[in-house]
Amino acid sequence: MESMLTLLMFFLLLSHYAFSPVSSDQQHPLDPLTPSEFSLVRTIVKKSYPSPNRNLTFQYISLDEPDKPTIISWLSNPGSTSPPRRALVTIRLEKESQYIIVDLTANSIISDNVYLGHGYPLLTLDEQDAASALPETYEPFIKSIEKRQLNLSDVICTTYTAGRRGGKYIVPVPKAEGTDYRASTQQPPFGPHPNGATFGQPDGPGFKIDGHNIRHIGGCYTEDLCPSYLRLTWTQLRIGTTKPSSIVVNLASANLQYHSSPSPIALSINAVFWDAYYAGEDGVPVNISNALCSFERYAGNIMWRHTESEISDEVIREVRAEVSLVVRMVAVVGNHDYIIDWEFKPDGTIKLGVGLTGVLEVKGVTYTHTDDIREDVYGTLLANNTIGIYHDHFLTYYLDLDVDGEANSFVKNNLETIRTTIQSSPRKSYWTVVSETAKTEGEARIQLGLNQPELIVVNPNKKTKLKLGIMSDTIRGAFTNNNVWVTPYNKSEKWAGGAFVDQSRGEDTLAVWSLIRNREIENKDIVLWYTIGFHHVPSQDEFPVMPTLSGGFELRPNNFFESNPVLKTRAPTLVPGPNCTTQG
Amino acid sequence: MESMLTLLMFFLLLSHYAFSPVSSDQQHPLDPLTPSEFSLVRTIVKKSYPSPNRNLTFQYISLDEPDKPTIISWLSNPGSTSPPRRALVTIRLEKESQYIIVDLTANSIISDNVYLGHGYPLLTLDEQDAASALPETYEPFIKSIEKRQLNLSDVICTTYTAGRRGGKYIVPVPKAEGTDYRASTQQPPFGPHPNGATFGQPDGPGFKIDGHNIRHIGGCYTEDLCPSYLRLTWTQLRIGTTKPSSIVVNLASANLQYHSSPSPIALSINAVFWDAYYAGEDGVPVNISNALCSFERYAGNIMWRHTESEISDEVIREVRAEVSLVVRMVAVVGNHDYIIDWEFKPDGTIKLGVGLTGVLEVKGVTYTHTDDIREDVYGTLLANNTIGIYHDHFLTYYLDLDVDGEANSFVKNNLETIRTTIQSSPRKSYWTVVSETAKTEGEARIQLGLNQPELIVVNPNKKTKLKLGIMSDTIRGAFTNNNVWVTPYNKSEKWAGGAFVDQSRGEDTLAVWSLIRNREIENKDIVLWYTIGFHHVPSQDEFPVMPTLSGGFELRPNNFFESNPVLKTRAPTLVPGPNCTTQG
Repeated sequence: MESMLTLLMFFLLLSHYAFSPVSSDQQHPLDPLTPSEFSLVRTIVKKSYPSPNRNLTFQYISLDEPDKPTIISWLSNPGSTSPPRRALVTIRLEKESQYIIVDLTANSIISDNVYLGHGYPLLTLDEQDAASALPETYEPFIKSIEKRQLNLSDVICTTYTAGRRGGKYIVPVPKAEGTDYRASTQQPPFGPHPNGATFGQPDGPGFKIDGHNIRHIGGCYTEDLCPSYLRLTWTQLRIGTTKPSSIVVNLASANLQYHSSPSPIALSINAVFWDAYYAGEDGVPVNISNALCSFERYAGNIMWRHTESEISDEVIREVRAEVSLVVRMVAVVGNHDYIIDWEFKPDGTIKLGVGLTGVLEVKGVTYTHTDDIREDVYGTLLANNTIGIYHDHFLTYYLDLDVDGEANSFVKNNLETIRTTIQSSPRKSYWTVVSETAKTEGEARIQLGLNQPELIVVNPNKKTKLKLGIMSDTIRGAFTNNNVWVTPYNKSEKWAGGAFVDQSRGEDTLAVWSLIRNREIENKDIVLWYTIGFHHVPSQDEFPVMPTLSGGFELRPNNFFESNPVLKTRAPTLVPGPNCTTQG
Repeated sequence: MESMLTLLMFFLLLSHYAFSPVSSDQQHPLDPLTPSEFSLVRTIVKKSYPSPNRNLTFQYISLDEPDKPTIISWLSNPGSTSPPRRALVTIRLEKESQYIIVDLTANSIISDNVYLGHGYPLLTLDEQDAASALPETYEPFIKSIEKRQLNLSDVICTTYTAGRRGGKYIVPVPKAEGTDYRASTQQPPFGPHPNGATFGQPDGPGFKIDGHNIRHIGGCYTEDLCPSYLRLTWTQLRIGTTKPSSIVVNLASANLQYHSSPSPIALSINAVFWDAYYAGEDGVPVNISNALCSFERYAGNIMWRHTESEISDEVIREVRAEVSLVVRMVAVVGNHDYIIDWEFKPDGTIKLGVGLTGVLEVKGVTYTHTDDIREDVYGTLLANNTIGIYHDHFLTYYLDLDVDGEANSFVKNNLETIRTTIQSSPRKSYWTVVSETAKTEGEARIQLGLNQPELIVVNPNKKTKLKLGIMSDTIRGAFTNNNVWVTPYNKSEKWAGGAFVDQSRGEDTLAVWSLIRNREIENKDIVLWYTIGFHHVPSQDEFPVMPTLSGGFELRPNNFFESNPVLKTRAPTLVPGPNCTTQG
């Protein structure tokens, strides 16, 4: 089930939580719901759906995004009043799932629908707690624990999304030795011992925050250079614009697919943190502090350089350091922690990174030595009686790319070998680029791998492009499904796994929308879906907690700028701090 | 030709130059030649090969590595005297190429051979300068320049390795506007403006340098934790050991395939720099200052983390910051600059990264607008009359992996889908790992891409492994040759393109050794060859100097450690510096 969880997990990262706004002059139509708006939603819904039996539960509350044209017209008229604020609410009432749109300006319900399809909204935390407590009151379960000579108090039951597991066999309980990863419980020898560091930005951070805007002064996203800036809201991470020529990356809002717990990422010493909010089962906003952070990365990378020694006798050498902006959230999905980074490089490249860490899902076995294993145990023996099971992680990104406007096309740049016909030529063949524009969804389904084309999203009516530069993920080669899809924008198609994914039969998924309809996508407002897949074969080195496994991909400007947008950048002043070994 | 250049370019990066040793108690058999040893070689050779006509030229001088058993026995007897020092010398004498082994201890020539095969050693810088000056004295060339209304003084001829170019057509000379990338010549508006930063390590850097040793205290390479340390010499970047259980990564020494010019990488403010030496045409050692550097990377990455909230009511959260050691060299090969990084992560992962920057190779055309182009111009129009030509970059890594000893095997972990036969099972299929050990070179040739297996180098006689975790390079999907090869160790097989590659016919290359002999490689001392390939389609955003395009791959411990080697690491003390925005 993990794959299904993680498939949908990404969406909630920047969507399930409403990030607390820093002081902002004006509200953006995509600003997240504020705590008071959450409360207003609760009041309106509870008044409209009186439930004497107290069986009204809020499964999900989020901003209902205005239609795209509304947002765009608002963007094109700076200072204009924001469109009405609306909330998307999913409730369970009298054993039915309802889908409600609440108008927060008119204090009224705009629409409600009872969901009659297969599947349910995800369990709330309260429901999960209740479910986890049930087995301990179930006689056969209690007996099975006794039969294993265990104390009920030592047993913890957790909920995953519904799935048949089956099999009630008895295996030795793995020993706890070596499984505690808390620093406070470690015994010497400690180490390795990374040295401490001091880091400072005398001029302050290179980005400015205004409400949910982040402006990266150090990047080509500043308006005086390239007409765009970075804006972050709970529903989207976006590079918007007030002039022509822009990249717009929208992350659709998503429903609550799994209760992840974002947590402080107290790592970078120049990070700015945001709090997040989500609705509890009773509709009351729950605060999560430091759910998301933003910091600048000085990783010692070279943004660009060249040494020219062929012109006359002088040696021309120019080097520029790269200082990128990272927006990060960590989501804990059961045993695994997902580090989701959006890295904005000064040259306009956006690197979408995923770091996979946390603890492995294990199961008990009778084995204590790998050599004794003669059957397929579906995993790796990590310690005595402990198998780390083979599993998958699929993360699907929803990228509503508007490259220099909404009307975009998806172009595959195929690199083809051409045989030379000129007899005199010593070169028998060469490769060239043959571009192919995808006319339908079917033509845009791509399995990344060998001989893959360059994938480019372009505004066919203008002369700028954004290349989807595949940086590829760590174990991507083993990924077997199409991992690039393109669909025409459709407000109701946001969640690759569907809105009511729990126990659903998959009738409301990306595959169904796309395969059945195979719509036209040329010169339209298109959405690009990119799936990162990990087939994870656990290893001892990952026990009891795994070193981060990283993957990702890049969106890279491709003939988007008329020349290198960071040519005239100034090298940052890098000053060594106390006792810092430095030279040259 | 660029592909051929770059194919071979990598080898000289850590090989062509002898890195100046920092004070060392004892010389390692693989220590680079010292300046005085260079001079001694010169003296011995000149004495042995008197050339009254002064036509003896030194094409290449490097350490002649002792045989591997000699090195290993020396390693196993700390303090034992180093084996005799020898030098490998390539000279041109009386129009012949000679291959000489010099004994620096006995001050004598051990062997010399006249090379009778096809191909020549690469041109020396002096030869290139001479060649570049020739056209200006050649009447037809002078006339062709006049015909173009150009001044001879405005024309620069450069040498690339021999290759037929052909075609003498006249095109407008592209204007110079916008091509000067020097900061000193830029006009306002400047920007983007990355903010300055101060960085300090109050306890000093987390690595210690002793001669050509680098010990990364902050990584699991310290002996008390995992019994290995990092040693760097001109011929190898190596993690050696004084105890069992070790990873040894050797980079073979290489001949001078192209005159790259490493240059200061004044970027990281906590970097330590090395100088490098190579032999001039006259045999005199030439110093290159700051040719290589080493620094610790605090990129804000998370080494591992987990938030556990399912156990009782307490929330357990542990986070560790990653501080990795980077060893970097930049090689300028004509128009391109290659940033070669070896990143040693604390958990034992070695990330081999390549950054491609510099200026694009361009050619003149009559076109000034992309729309006017109706033919295949083999490139992208970057500016008026300027085409950035399609080209390739291939970098081949020679990795003499000794995983816990020399006897290793190359294992492919294929992920295979198994259909379940149990009717009652709701699960119809699952995937599992089917391991396959390559018995011959042929079975180890792999084209990376879709459904690629996990590639693992293992000591079949012991229980440790090193996984070659493919991180994959940016445009790798388009790479069409086998990019993983495995050969049995053979001292004479070090340079994928051969020792005398210039104008050779490819009879002394990796492909020939491997395809013809198809040797056995199971449970043997094996060498792994990994090729990173870029098919580069230039874009305007890369003009006049290109933002760095990055790729690489990872070597990751795989059941090498019995558990997470950085579990007991201490979080580094990260202290905010002056005016540093910080929180949480």
